[in-house]
Amino acid sequence: MRIYTTSIFGSLVTAGIIIAVSMLVYFILKGIITRVANRKLKKDDDASRFHTLTSVLTSLAAYGIFFIAFVMVLNEFGVNTSAILASAGILGLAIGFGAQGLVSDTVTGFFVLVEDQVNVGEYVTIGGYSGVVEETGLRLMKLRGFNGDLHFIPNREIASLTNHSRGNMQALVDISISYDSDIDQAVRVLQSKCDQIKERLPQIVEGPNVLGVQALGSSDVVIRILARTENGEQWAVERELRKELKIALDQAGIEIPFPHQTVLYKETT
Amino acid sequence: MRIYTTSIFGSLVTAGIIIAVSMLVYFILKGIITRVANRKLKKDDDASRFHTLTSVLTSLAAYGIFFIAFVMVLNEFGVNTSAILASAGILGLAIGFGAQGLVSDTVTGFFVLVEDQVNVGEYVTIGGYSGVVEETGLRLMKLRGFNGDLHFIPNREIASLTNHSRGNMQALVDISISYDSDIDQAVRVLQSKCDQIKERLPQIVEGPNVLGVQALGSSDVVIRILARTENGEQWAVERELRKELKIALDQAGIEIPFPHQTVLYKETT
Amino acid sequence: MRIYTTSIFGSLVTAGIIIAVSMLVYFILKGIITRVANRKLKKDDDASRFHTLTSVLTSLAAYGIFFIAFVMVLNEFGVNTSAILASAGILGLAIGFGAQGLVSDTVTGFFVLVEDQVNVGEYVTIGGYSGVVEETGLRLMKLRGFNGDLHFIPNREIASLTNHSRGNMQALVDISISYDSDIDQAVRVLQSKCDQIKERLPQIVEGPNVLGVQALGSSDVVIRILARTENGEQWAVERELRKELKIALDQAGIEIPFPHQTVLYKETT
Amino acid sequence: MRIYTTSIFGSLVTAGIIIAVSMLVYFILKGIITRVANRKLKKDDDASRFHTLTSVLTSLAAYGIFFIAFVMVLNEFGVNTSAILASAGILGLAIGFGAQGLVSDTVTGFFVLVEDQVNVGEYVTIGGYSGVVEETGLRLMKLRGFNGDLHFIPNREIASLTNHSRGNMQALVDISISYDSDIDQAVRVLQSKCDQIKERLPQIVEGPNVLGVQALGSSDVVIRILARTENGEQWAVERELRKELKIALDQAGIEIPFPHQTVLYKETT
Amino acid sequence: MRIYTTSIFGSLVTAGIIIAVSMLVYFILKGIITRVANRKLKKDDDASRFHTLTSVLTSLAAYGIFFIAFVMVLNEFGVNTSAILASAGILGLAIGFGAQGLVSDTVTGFFVLVEDQVNVGEYVTIGGYSGVVEETGLRLMKLRGFNGDLHFIPNREIASLTNHSRGNMQALVDISISYDSDIDQAVRVLQSKCDQIKERLPQIVEGPNVLGVQALGSSDVVIRILARTENGEQWAVERELRKELKIALDQAGIEIPFPHQTVLYKETT
Amino acid sequence: MRIYTTSIFGSLVTAGIIIAVSMLVYFILKGIITRVANRKLKKDDDASRFHTLTSVLTSLAAYGIFFIAFVMVLNEFGVNTSAILASAGILGLAIGFGAQGLVSDTVTGFFVLVEDQVNVGEYVTIGGYSGVVEETGLRLMKLRGFNGDLHFIPNREIASLTNHSRGNMQALVDISISYDSDIDQAVRVLQSKCDQIKERLPQIVEGPNVLGVQALGSSDVVIRILARTENGEQWAVERELRKELKIALDQAGIEIPFPHQTVLYKETT
Amino acid sequence: MRIYTTSIFGSLVTAGIIIAVSMLVYFILKGIITRVANRKLKKDDDASRFHTLTSVLTSLAAYGIFFIAFVMVLNEFGVNTSAILASAGILGLAIGFGAQGLVSDTVTGFFVLVEDQVNVGEYVTIGGYSGVVEETGLRLMKLRGFNGDLHFIPNREIASLTNHSRGNMQALVDISISYDSDIDQAVRVLQSKCDQIKERLPQIVEGPNVLGVQALGSSDVVIRILARTENGEQWAVERELRKELKIALDQAGIEIPFPHQTVLYKETT
Repeated sequence: MRIYTTSIFGSLVTAGIIIAVSMLVYFILKGIITRVANRKLKKDDDASRFHTLTSVLTSLAAYGIFFIAFVMVLNEFGVNTSAILASAGILGLAIGFGAQGLVSDTVTGFFVLVEDQVNVGEYVTIGGYSGVVEETGLRLMKLRGFNGDLHFIPNREIASLTNHSRGNMQALVDISISYDSDIDQAVRVLQSKCDQIKERLPQIVEGPNVLGVQALGSSDVVIRILARTENGEQWAVERELRKELKIALDQAGIEIPFPHQTVLYKETT
Repeated sequence: MRIYTTSIFGSLVTAGIIIAVSMLVYFILKGIITRVANRKLKKDDDASRFHTLTSVLTSLAAYGIFFIAFVMVLNEFGVNTSAILASAGILGLAIGFGAQGLVSDTVTGFFVLVEDQVNVGEYVTIGGYSGVVEETGLRLMKLRGFNGDLHFIPNREIASLTNHSRGNMQALVDISISYDSDIDQAVRVLQSKCDQIKERLPQIVEGPNVLGVQALGSSDVVIRILARTENGEQWAVERELRKELKIALDQAGIEIPFPHQTVLYKETT
Repeated sequence: MRIYTTSIFGSLVTAGIIIAVSMLVYFILKGIITRVANRKLKKDDDASRFHTLTSVLTSLAAYGIFFIAFVMVLNEFGVNTSAILASAGILGLAIGFGAQGLVSDTVTGFFVLVEDQVNVGEYVTIGGYSGVVEETGLRLMKLRGFNGDLHFIPNREIASLTNHSRGNMQALVDISISYDSDIDQAVRVLQSKCDQIKERLPQIVEGPNVLGVQALGSSDVVIRILARTENGEQWAVERELRKELKIALDQAGIEIPFPHQTVLYKETT
Repeated sequence: MRIYTTSIFGSLVTAGIIIAVSMLVYFILKGIITRVANRKLKKDDDASRFHTLTSVLTSLAAYGIFFIAFVMVLNEFGVNTSAILASAGILGLAIGFGAQGLVSDTVTGFFVLVEDQVNVGEYVTIGGYSGVVEETGLRLMKLRGFNGDLHFIPNREIASLTNHSRGNMQALVDISISYDSDIDQAVRVLQSKCDQIKERLPQIVEGPNVLGVQALGSSDVVIRILARTENGEQWAVERELRKELKIALDQAGIEIPFPHQTVLYKETT
Repeated sequence: MRIYTTSIFGSLVTAGIIIAVSMLVYFILKGIITRVANRKLKKDDDASRFHTLTSVLTSLAAYGIFFIAFVMVLNEFGVNTSAILASAGILGLAIGFGAQGLVSDTVTGFFVLVEDQVNVGEYVTIGGYSGVVEETGLRLMKLRGFNGDLHFIPNREIASLTNHSRGNMQALVDISISYDSDIDQAVRVLQSKCDQIKERLPQIVEGPNVLGVQALGSSDVVIRILARTENGEQWAVERELRKELKIALDQAGIEIPFPHQTVLYKETT
Repeated sequence: MRIYTTSIFGSLVTAGIIIAVSMLVYFILKGIITRVANRKLKKDDDASRFHTLTSVLTSLAAYGIFFIAFVMVLNEFGVNTSAILASAGILGLAIGFGAQGLVSDTVTGFFVLVEDQVNVGEYVTIGGYSGVVEETGLRLMKLRGFNGDLHFIPNREIASLTNHSRGNMQALVDISISYDSDIDQAVRVLQSKCDQIKERLPQIVEGPNVLGVQALGSSDVVIRILARTENGEQWAVERELRKELKIALDQAGIEIPFPHQTVLYKETT
Repeated sequence: MRIYTTSIFGSLVTAGIIIAVSMLVYFILKGIITRVANRKLKKDDDASRFHTLTSVLTSLAAYGIFFIAFVMVLNEFGVNTSAILASAGILGLAIGFGAQGLVSDTVTGFFVLVEDQVNVGEYVTIGGYSGVVEETGLRLMKLRGFNGDLHFIPNREIASLTNHSRGNMQALVDISISYDSDIDQAVRVLQSKCDQIKERLPQIVEGPNVLGVQALGSSDVVIRILARTENGEQWAVERELRKELKIALDQAGIEIPFPHQTVLYKETT
């Protein structure tokens, strides 16, 4: 299926052409990768991420191009490359099944980096683990849980990822009042307290507002209060709201009820 | 298996024909894609979505056609393309297993866009995550949860998708009354209050109607009220209904019961 | 492995024969498909479903036949088709893994349509989602949930499918009576009320009948009542039954008991 | 790799032999299938099931044999069948992945029919769905749930199958008595009532027998009664047993206890 | 790649040798299978199981050997066997995916039989289903549940299998005594009763013994009693133990306590 | 692709060389396996395990080497081995899918034996089943559950394995004291009792020690006591600890509290 | 496809060149591996881990290179290597499916070692099992659970891994106070006690701090206290905190409430 060149010379010429074309293709690809990366990634001056990604892509291109070139040159000099390819194929297949996870890690990790889904220091939830990102990489991610645990999560485990450190957060408090209490009065008392808290706490971005009756419980009427706070401040705001709103209801004489039960006595038969 | 041309000239001619035919096929395909897309997608003037989809399809066609043409031309000049193809095959298989998810993302993402399943700004539920769509793409979707979390969901994770922003929503309230109360009277009181609320709240599209006795609970008779509201207004309507219906029952002297228990005393043996 | 024709003329003749045979096969297949579809599907004059299915089948036949013919003709003229086939194979495999779901959607969708499992407007449950079918297709199904949500369900997600709109439905009510009550009397009271209800409500097809003592609960004897109603009327009938049977027991002086507890006092040691 | 015949005549002879051998093989296979089916399936004169299975098997044999014969004949006349086979292979693989479920349906359905696992009208449980079989087929099964739902279950979903309509069923009733009651007396009372019920109800095949103390509950001693009834009568028998045994205990003055609790009072500190 | 014999005669000789060698190999294999089976399986004179297994193995050997011989003979006479093999391969692959479960059934069933994991009439638990084995086979197993259900379980569903009919079983009873009771006295009373029961019930193999304090419950001290009984007698022994131990405690004046609760009264604010 | 030897003699010589080399390779491999096994496994004089493993490995080597040698010799004599290989390949693939579990069993079983993870007589937990190992093998493991069940677990089901019979075990007892009790005094009383128990029970290796306040329960302060015992003695030690510590607290007048509840009375409105 | 050398001599020369090149490639690769490993791993003088990893990598390289060289040399001497390769391929595929887990173990184990995710003696959680690492290896990991169990975990089971022994840990205590108590006073009392504890316990790194009102429970106001301690000290600190804070509240006269319930009496109708 190929023109049998009558001399070694012809083979050398062909090999030279193959190598030259390969290098040309390589440099063109490298240029394209660098330019695209420059355009897409430079805006956030995250030099390390930029470097990781371009070097991965250029290495991949280099391996692919020079492997093909190498096989073609050997072929040109009459080496039976089919043996090499077949052996490589069997080895590759054997390892491939086991290393599948590894490739999967790298592909997912690549996109997590490219798409800027997490940064070191952000608080995220991945596959049931929550924590602050300590390190990101092509193969795994390290999260530091709030209780001090260090989670090692291979990137393949990242199906859906939740980033808790992008944008304002919600503070939500549910307060119960008695069925006997006047709902409208309770809402007024809670809202006026909320307004005071808003002025005192600058980390509150929006609200807190009393939304209304969230549920008619078995023993209580549940009132929901909602606020929007700066990132990371939601828990402190919720704690402050709980304390202040409880005191406000106490002062207004509105009862926070315990579980109720109606009891009927019956004579033992 | 091919006609061995006696001269380089013949090869050049054949190569030219191959390239010409490839370009012809490419332009015909591109024309078809543009026309079909124009017809199917133009109705909603969503220019960005239109552009994404047609460019994806034309790129795909181009890659396919020119890869085949490239291999055929090389073949024509006596280059041993089987080595290229075999190397590419091994590389492809090795990567293919890991990148499977990537292709799956793209295919699913393509259809989510074509079928107009979500738009930016709609409130949707995907694979256990609920939120407002911030960004759609061929590889992933970004949802902003109500509590401020940002969810990154690869399209492959989209099995079934629920869009909460298409059409009117239902507001459902269950109210308990005592076993001692007159059910018919309670239904009358609740329905008349419902009618008042409907006049006051324009976001209610249909109802609210008292459906009847939904359950005979262990301590209470449960009455269900149902309304249909404009999209996004269902929670506010439910809160308003809960408050107003509770007040209506209070005024009518109908008891909302606490959990009941009948107690029998027995002497300790 | 083929007869090397000595002239271009021979190739042209062979090509012509190939094309002629292909077209013949195509028209025969098309005729068969149309006739079979006519016979099997025409009974329910669902023209759109008929059209979808026959056009899918004829397209599929056409693609298959003409692809094979195209490859054979090229081969006849000495074009090295193995390169085309190998390239196509690699591309196909790469995409195939990702697009697997797509083919699976289409195959499942095809059978859901052929077997007439759902029609637009029916109330069905698929993979945990319940709703009224808004649209059926080869790739996905759109369900409108009762609460207004719009579910997009790819056909591959359809494992088992429950159609709630085919045939009469069951209305089931469990009523508790006290351990002190006379079971036989309670059954008589409930059954006579059931008979009255049956006469009043024409949507009841069968029953309602008192089945007997379904359970001896911790505080109550549970009596089960069962009816069969027209499709979609089961919930309304159940609500009516609950209300009327509760009133009937009240009138007969039979107690619906609250949870009971026997209490023994003991002096603190 | 084959003897190159010097004339068209030789090819024709070979083709004829191939076709003749194929038809011979086909008719032998068909005969075997019919005879085996006759012997294995005829005992239950279920003509439709007999027909479905033999026609499926003979069709399958025919497709396999004539496809191979067709390819061999084409080959004999110098048609390049490798192109056909390779094209068919690629198409087949592409579709195969998606249609996997379809083949799986058919194989499972075939064995469900052959092994007579379900008949129309029987009450079965398959993959979480229970109902009466309305239709069995090679691809899916239709179950009518007790509440009126129609379940469409593809045969591939049938992992383990429970048939509730083959043989006598068990009726099981647990009765609680007080810790103060005499266990032996209670067992005697219950057993004598059981004996009366057995004489009255002909659908009881065995029992009902009082097994003894099944559990020492937190407030009660649980006595288990077990009977074996004709198929489909178990629920009615259980209901009758519950009612009659409760009355028997009432008459014997043996208490069915409510939940007990011992209470210790303590002064608030 | 083979020595082209110059005459039909040579082919016939070769074919004869191939067939002779095949038959030799077959009879040797058959002899080995029978001898091994004789040695391994004969000890339990389970003739049917012996027959099933040896016939399966010899059939499998025969199919394999004669298929290879058939292909080699055809090849010898110049028939293009690659077409047969390729066609068979495509058909096989297409069916293979779907029939995977079938092969899996057979392989698992084979080992369940060889390893004598279950016998007809034993009580076993497989994949969540419990029942008495009615039939074992290469493809499925039939279990009769205690409540009368007939479970059809394909062998592939057998992951881990629990056989409840091999060896003595354990009877375990937990008895609660009051916190006020003397633990040592209670243990003495229970153990002396256990000793009486052991003498009365011959199906008890070992024990019953009082192990000691199993738990300090919220209202009771839990004492555990353990016995070992003949297979199938454990439930009857447990029921007898519960009854007798309860009576023993009653006679010794040791209380079996109800749930306790300490109550503190507080004036409503 | 091979040097066509001009005589049968040359073939015979080549075949002889192939066989000689194969046997050489086999004996070298066998020697290596025996020596390695001798070195690694002999320390625990578990002759049966040693024998199983070396015979498995040498058989495997023998099958591999002689299969390759056989194919090469046939090839040398001009037998078309590609037909054998292709047939074997198709058969192998067809069976391979189903027998996958079998190979998986063997591989896992091999490593469980090599790594000495379980021995007969040890108490282990595998895939949700706990019991004493009755038999280990290359394909499955038999566990005898405490209640007498015999579990058959194919080795493939062994994901993670817990061995409860290697090393000392922990005895853990939680004791509740009243909120009114003096924690320090209770800890002193419990610790002094623990010290007495330690002297009396030689199977206690370490402790028991009072760790401190494990939880502030809703009605009680929970104190944790921890000991380390000889393997298999942990349950008896726990039972003894529970009994003795309860008596110690009784003697010291420290209350073990029942669930508490504060009750507020309210007039019915 | 290769230059047929006219003499054995040429083959010998080619073979020599192949072997020489192979050895060259091997030594270069070995040098690279050692150097890289020296640079990356030496910092933590963990000689055993260093040795394991470099020997694995060099062995792998050696196997790969010399297998290819061996095949090429055989090929050079006219041995039909395709038979060897095909046989090896079939064997490899057959085993590959079953041994997939083994390769997966090794790949995962390799990265766990390289990335230094666990060390012997650390307390980790893997796939639901928690314990102290007793041994790490390429195939499995041994964990010693706190209760004395020995867990054998194949590396493939390691999806995400949590290491509890890297860095400071969090001690978290929730204390309930009554709704009647003054929250501000309680916080002051708790914080001052926390400050005393901090001075007494040097293993506390940060805090303990009173965060505020974590929840408004049904009967209690929950206050959260948080500290950060040295690794492994968190449980002891939590126990100490619980005891001391309970005593502090007692001394300040602040009630830790029992569950509350409001009870309404009703006359039996």
